[in-house]
Amino acid sequence: MKLRFCVLMFASAMILPAADDLKKPLVLASQGSFFVGGESKSVTASGPNPQAPAVTGDITVNQMYVQFQTPVGGNHTPIVMVHGCCLSSKTWETTPDGRMGWNEYFVRKGRPTYLADQVSRARSGFDGSRINAVRTGAVPPSQLPNILTASHQTAWAVFRFGPTFNTPFPDGQFPIEAVDELYKQMIPDLNSLLPIPNPTWTNMAALAVKLRGAVLIGHSESGFYPEQAALIDPTGVKGIVSIEMPCVTNLTSPQLSTLAKIPTLVMFGDHLGDVKGGVANWATSFESCQTFVKQVSDAGGDAQMMHLPKMGIKGNSHMLMQDRNNLQLADLILDWTDMHVEGKKASHKK
Amino acid sequence: MKLRFCVLMFASAMILPAADDLKKPLVLASQGSFFVGGESKSVTASGPNPQAPAVTGDITVNQMYVQFQTPVGGNHTPIVMVHGCCLSSKTWETTPDGRMGWNEYFVRKGRPTYLADQVSRARSGFDGSRINAVRTGAVPPSQLPNILTASHQTAWAVFRFGPTFNTPFPDGQFPIEAVDELYKQMIPDLNSLLPIPNPTWTNMAALAVKLRGAVLIGHSESGFYPEQAALIDPTGVKGIVSIEMPCVTNLTSPQLSTLAKIPTLVMFGDHLGDVKGGVANWATSFESCQTFVKQVSDAGGDAQMMHLPKMGIKGNSHMLMQDRNNLQLADLILDWTDMHVEGKKASHKK
Repeated sequence: MKLRFCVLMFASAMILPAADDLKKPLVLASQGSFFVGGESKSVTASGPNPQAPAVTGDITVNQMYVQFQTPVGGNHTPIVMVHGCCLSSKTWETTPDGRMGWNEYFVRKGRPTYLADQVSRARSGFDGSRINAVRTGAVPPSQLPNILTASHQTAWAVFRFGPTFNTPFPDGQFPIEAVDELYKQMIPDLNSLLPIPNPTWTNMAALAVKLRGAVLIGHSESGFYPEQAALIDPTGVKGIVSIEMPCVTNLTSPQLSTLAKIPTLVMFGDHLGDVKGGVANWATSFESCQTFVKQVSDAGGDAQMMHLPKMGIKGNSHMLMQDRNNLQLADLILDWTDMHVEGKKASHKK
Repeated sequence: MKLRFCVLMFASAMILPAADDLKKPLVLASQGSFFVGGESKSVTASGPNPQAPAVTGDITVNQMYVQFQTPVGGNHTPIVMVHGCCLSSKTWETTPDGRMGWNEYFVRKGRPTYLADQVSRARSGFDGSRINAVRTGAVPPSQLPNILTASHQTAWAVFRFGPTFNTPFPDGQFPIEAVDELYKQMIPDLNSLLPIPNPTWTNMAALAVKLRGAVLIGHSESGFYPEQAALIDPTGVKGIVSIEMPCVTNLTSPQLSTLAKIPTLVMFGDHLGDVKGGVANWATSFESCQTFVKQVSDAGGDAQMMHLPKMGIKGNSHMLMQDRNNLQLADLILDWTDMHVEGKKASHKK
C-alpha cells in the first residue's frame, strides 16, 4: 500500500496538471439537468389564522436536482458528486478564489460528471408545508425544523482553516484570502425535515442505476451517502469515494458484504486534531473511518484510506476540493478510479 | 412595427434552428460560477427554549449565485437570465421533456450567458434566522415568512396550461406530457423575507456593471426586475427583456427617462384570458405592460411589445422558455438583441 502511494505521489509531482491545457476551450458532447425521484404530497390549508393562508393542493417533495456535463469520446464511468452540510453543488464549481473546480476538471479528464443538490437544499427545493402550518397556527413552533445555518465562526472551525477563528494555519491549503466567498456558499440546511431513509440516498442509488453504473462521491454530511445509497441498491454503484465524515462502524455482516463488492476510497486532509472548538471532532471521525475501512477489507473488499498528510500532502482543509492543490487531489481520485473501478492504469497522466 | 414583425416571422419560419447543429459538441471558452453582493449579519441565539439552539455568530445574507458559460469568439453582449416565483435557474435549462433550454441555446448562438438564482432561493440560500427565532420562542409564529409554495393546481392555472386543471389547451405549446417534471422544479419562495429594495435588483445591476454591459432577462415574478435594476443603476444595463409579468405604470418622469435610454422588449404568450381561477390575471398584466411600453416610447425610448399570438405564434404558455417552440422564441429575442441593442442585422440566421 505504501509503495503504491509513493508511486502515485511521485507521478503527481512530476506531472502536475498543465495549466495551459486547462485554458483550452472546453468541448462537451452534452450537458443538461434533470430530477431524480420526487413524489406528490397533498397539502391542505388549516389553522386558526385567516391572515396566513397556506397552500392547498398537491406539491412535489423529495426530488433531487442533478446537473451534468459529458465529454466528447471516452468510455469512463460517470462520476456523481454530492455536497455537504449547509452547502450546495457550488462546492464543486469555481473555487472561492476563482480557480477551476472539480466539476470541470473531471469533465476535462474524460468523465461524465453529475452534480446533485441534496434533497431539501438549493435547486432541489424543500417541503415548506410544516413551516406554513406553524404560521397558520395548525401546529406549535416546537415542530419547526431545526434549520442548520453554519456561522462564519462554525465554518472556520469545522472546515479547519486554522486553530482559532480568523487565524489560519501557516501551511493551510485553503485560499483563505477568499474565505468571504466561501461564506456566501453556505446556505440553510433543512435535512431535519427529511423522512427516513434520507431520499437523497435513494435518489443517488437510482441515479447510479439510470447511468448504468457510476462512482459516487460524498463529502462531510454526505460523505457516507454513497455507502447508504449502495445499501439501498448497490446495482449501479461501481465505486465509492467518501471524503471527510464520520463513518458508520456497526454495519451488519450482510451490509459489509454488500459494500465489500464495491471499491471504496476514503480521503482525509490535515490538521484533524488541531482546531479548538467547533461542532466536529475530525480525529474521532478519522478513527471511525479507519475502523470502517478495515471492516470492509476484512469482509474481502477493496477499501483504502488516503490520509493526505501521511502521503506527504500537507495543510489540506475540510474543503479540500477548493484547496490550492485541489487538482492534485482530483488526480489522486482519478488514478484510484482508473485502477480500482476501471481496472486500468492511471489514465490522466497520458 | 407590424412590417418588422412580419419580416421576422418570415425569416424565422424559413430558417428554423437546424437540429443537426444543436447536436454538435458544445465548445466553451469558459464556464464557472460566482456570487454577486452579500453582506454579513450578526445572529445571536436567544429564546426560552434551550432545546432549540439557534446559530450564534455571523452569517452571510443577500448574496446572489450566478452560473455562466461563454462561447469561443464573438463579441456579443452578455445575457443575464433570472427566473420567476417558486422556481430556480432550472427554468432556463433542459426542458421538462428533455429538449435544449435557452441557457445552452444562447451560448451556442454566441452569447455569454449568465443564470442567476434569485436572492433567498436555491443556491443563493436564504436568511433562516427568523424561522429559527420562532423555533426558540424569541418571536411569535406570526413573524414567520409567508413561504410561497405553488401547488400543481396553482401552477397549472398561473402557467396557463389549460382552461381547468388537467385539461390542456388543444393548441398548447407546453410539453404537457412532462408536466410532472415541471412540478419538480417548483420550490419554496422566501422573497417575503427580503429587505427593500429587493437585493436581487441591486445585484442584477451590479452584475451588469461587472460584465461591462449586459442584456437582463426577467420572467414572471422577476419580469420587471431588469427595469428595477436599471432604476437602481442603469450603467451596465444595455437591454431589457421582460417576459410575462405585471408592469409598473406609475413611474415618475425621471424614472421613465432613465428607462427610455435602454432598449426594452416585452413578450407575452397566448390564452391570456382563457384560464378560470388562479392567482394571476394575465389579461390585466398584459394591459399594464401595453401602458408601460407606451409610456417608455412616449419618453423617447425604444420599447416594444411582442404579443406572440398577434404575430401568428399560437398556444404559448407562461413557461414559454420551455414550450415546444422555445427555440423559435429565443430566436426572436436574439434578433431583437442584435438589432436593438447591438445595432446589427439579425445574426443568428447566418
